[in-house]
Amino acid sequence: MPYAIDETHDPSLKSWVESANDPKSDFPIQNLPYVNYMGKDEDPANPLADGFVGPLGVVIGDQILDVNRLLDEGLLETVEEVATNSEDSDICYWLHAVEGLANAPLAFRKELRNQLSTILKSDSSIDRDLVSKLLTPVTDCVFHEPSIGDYTDFYASLYHATNVGSMFRPDNPLLPNYKHIPIGYHGRASSIVASGTSIKRPVGQQAPSEEGGSPAFGPCKLLDYEMEMGVIVGRGNDLGEPISIVEAEDHMLGMCILNDWSARDLQKWEYVPLGPFLAKNFASTVSPYIVTMEALAPFRCPAMERDAGDPQPLPYMDSDANRKAGGFDIMVEVHLSSAKMREQGIEPVHLSTGNFKDMYWTLAQMLTHHTVNGCNLQPGDLLGSGTISGTTRDARGSMLELTWDGDPFAEPPVVVPGTQRTPIVLPTGEERKFIADGDEVIMKAYCEREGFRRIGFGECRGIIEPARTL
Amino acid sequence: MPYAIDETHDPSLKSWVESANDPKSDFPIQNLPYVNYMGKDEDPANPLADGFVGPLGVVIGDQILDVNRLLDEGLLETVEEVATNSEDSDICYWLHAVEGLANAPLAFRKELRNQLSTILKSDSSIDRDLVSKLLTPVTDCVFHEPSIGDYTDFYASLYHATNVGSMFRPDNPLLPNYKHIPIGYHGRASSIVASGTSIKRPVGQQAPSEEGGSPAFGPCKLLDYEMEMGVIVGRGNDLGEPISIVEAEDHMLGMCILNDWSARDLQKWEYVPLGPFLAKNFASTVSPYIVTMEALAPFRCPAMERDAGDPQPLPYMDSDANRKAGGFDIMVEVHLSSAKMREQGIEPVHLSTGNFKDMYWTLAQMLTHHTVNGCNLQPGDLLGSGTISGTTRDARGSMLELTWDGDPFAEPPVVVPGTQRTPIVLPTGEERKFIADGDEVIMKAYCEREGFRRIGFGECRGIIEPARTL
Repeated sequence: MPYAIDETHDPSLKSWVESANDPKSDFPIQNLPYVNYMGKDEDPANPLADGFVGPLGVVIGDQILDVNRLLDEGLLETVEEVATNSEDSDICYWLHAVEGLANAPLAFRKELRNQLSTILKSDSSIDRDLVSKLLTPVTDCVFHEPSIGDYTDFYASLYHATNVGSMFRPDNPLLPNYKHIPIGYHGRASSIVASGTSIKRPVGQQAPSEEGGSPAFGPCKLLDYEMEMGVIVGRGNDLGEPISIVEAEDHMLGMCILNDWSARDLQKWEYVPLGPFLAKNFASTVSPYIVTMEALAPFRCPAMERDAGDPQPLPYMDSDANRKAGGFDIMVEVHLSSAKMREQGIEPVHLSTGNFKDMYWTLAQMLTHHTVNGCNLQPGDLLGSGTISGTTRDARGSMLELTWDGDPFAEPPVVVPGTQRTPIVLPTGEERKFIADGDEVIMKAYCEREGFRRIGFGECRGIIEPARTL
Repeated sequence: MPYAIDETHDPSLKSWVESANDPKSDFPIQNLPYVNYMGKDEDPANPLADGFVGPLGVVIGDQILDVNRLLDEGLLETVEEVATNSEDSDICYWLHAVEGLANAPLAFRKELRNQLSTILKSDSSIDRDLVSKLLTPVTDCVFHEPSIGDYTDFYASLYHATNVGSMFRPDNPLLPNYKHIPIGYHGRASSIVASGTSIKRPVGQQAPSEEGGSPAFGPCKLLDYEMEMGVIVGRGNDLGEPISIVEAEDHMLGMCILNDWSARDLQKWEYVPLGPFLAKNFASTVSPYIVTMEALAPFRCPAMERDAGDPQPLPYMDSDANRKAGGFDIMVEVHLSSAKMREQGIEPVHLSTGNFKDMYWTLAQMLTHHTVNGCNLQPGDLLGSGTISGTTRDARGSMLELTWDGDPFAEPPVVVPGTQRTPIVLPTGEERKFIADGDEVIMKAYCEREGFRRIGFGECRGIIEPARTL
């Protein structure tokens, strides 16, 4: 694995940006996630803002530091040196936005992290007055999702696949390919939006109520979220040249939270034989903070162990390093607030807590499998993990699973065929089986480990607006 | 329909570029397709060539005319005028490459076509010596596929869907949603390559030979092509704002040939429940000539008529104009040459001839359906039609169909369950059930109509190279 624990993870490190030292902060000096951002008062009509994807910032506590201006001020000399020594030096591009950094060599990224840590630590010898001028409070900024070329979504949680499969095939929930292949499909890149963007309820065809009948048409009635993690691809590969499992993590820049909004009624009608389409491509929301693979080094864990009867991964998806440390111990939480709750000043309710380590396939396996046929990945591509669900009810990462009356993991399995659902009751007395207009879905993710500072991914938020008038 | 027959389609128009007047030419003055190109001797290491997507050329006979240099020479004054009168004038961007032109207003595109026709016609008053210097022979150029943001592939041929469905479900070949929804899925944009690019045979997992067994792993054994047409999206739509069927064609720039290479054995194993993935994303080939919607105006035809028992399209996919002229009369041909045939100087053999008018869904219906849920299209996106097959054996657009011993359209249907296949015998005596290493697949498309000049799409070629060594 190219990402080792080093002095930048030292839990005793503090920053002169005081907010970063709050133990509850997602963004201590040990994290240093990257964002594409601009000031709220910047003119969106200026040319820079047209298809705007920069400048690159790094988040420290409740502030964002402008990485481009650090370069202008001559504060990234050691980083420039690494760039100069690189065969395809292109420092201006690498520092222009998240997707530029994705194309930078590992040594460059590592030195950038080191240097940012050196600049921001409490005992830094840097000119703090100067650097302070390059800071903007997070609350004064707007974020932009990275410019994503291709988006692929996987289906890597055995528990999610089993839950969903149980609803439709109680006797045989998992398809025969599941334990051999990290199942994935291509998603829509254009409709990926940054946290905070409102989403209109999609409209579309829904399955006829009886066989042979005509489909209904109208606003989606079964709108759902899916709690996922996403990885932003780093350097890509040439067409026809796969990435081996040993090299897979060299090709990852970092991770973010991903809400794969899903219109279940559209999905049920359209998905055979070619997979989900309009049920997903109306919007997917990403958190803007790209937490680097370097920052995540202390939170690695073994890949999920196979059960005795399970097939071993084929050799191209197997390695010692992947078995021992291919996983990530990341807690993932979903919260919901209705419009009424917000009006009444009621805090969002907690819906679920899962963990990314409970995935059947590791990110390295997904990335390797994606390229084994020769498919080329490109810097800034997004790979979604698929819904993260665990074995217990409160670890289910979608409403489809949360409100469903079944437990395929109980002994004996308790599976209720059909669509019987127990709604979630909100503090206002409102009930939810799926997502209603005005609901805000709030996803959080964070890593905690004894002996290390907690690091977080911030939040991934989206409010559902009513469907357009038909 | 925004594209009417006008004086640029006049069959008596000739060009002073003599090769365009050859009745066999794909590129008479009535066509004028756009390409992204550069000279073969241009240095691919220069900065312009890095992620190169221009300059924009227009093809006339066997020559390419540099559109950017026409602008520099002041020969596009009337076009500049239309740009100036446009709210979001950006002529340099609109003329920089095919994907720039995709973003130009219809009035700009129309005037550009008019002006190019005026410059190139026999009795043009233009300085021919000057314009001649801006011509490069096609044979001295290399082409680049447009920069495609998102790629969506449809499945719009009822005959293809019925053929493929019959192989797996002889009693019930068509799924219940087929006649209600233009079924589509997201493809991979990064692996779209221009005609002439060699394709390595993909490697991957294949279905176990017996139920519950382990999958095989290795080079694809059932490699296939799919003969499709693609449409390059013009101006896009905002997220949440669908494009109506009436406006759908305003959002199309033009069409090209698309070979949706398919690894059938990978597909069979991986495609449930989320659709094709590695079976398709190793490569898709496009012809570089973007034949404009304007050029295609004389070749419009009614949308395919529904049978008596068929459902009518839902209102959002129905319009008078679409019913009357939503189709395109485009002949599509597939040819094949093996390495041995080329060694022996034998011409490619003809495999099939279909017609794009035989599609169950029109392009306008596909584009409208794609956005009905709010999904945003962007300039330069590619929509594939799906394999174009007809009712007869020699109109089948893939090897999977061509070599299959079944005829679901015969009376009574003659459907042979299972995988019995009759190979195609090549002039060398070689046999093909699918595509072998060294085979070149050559697709052609063209429009012919009494009273109009024939226009063509050029060729879409690809040679299959052996799989990488495992």
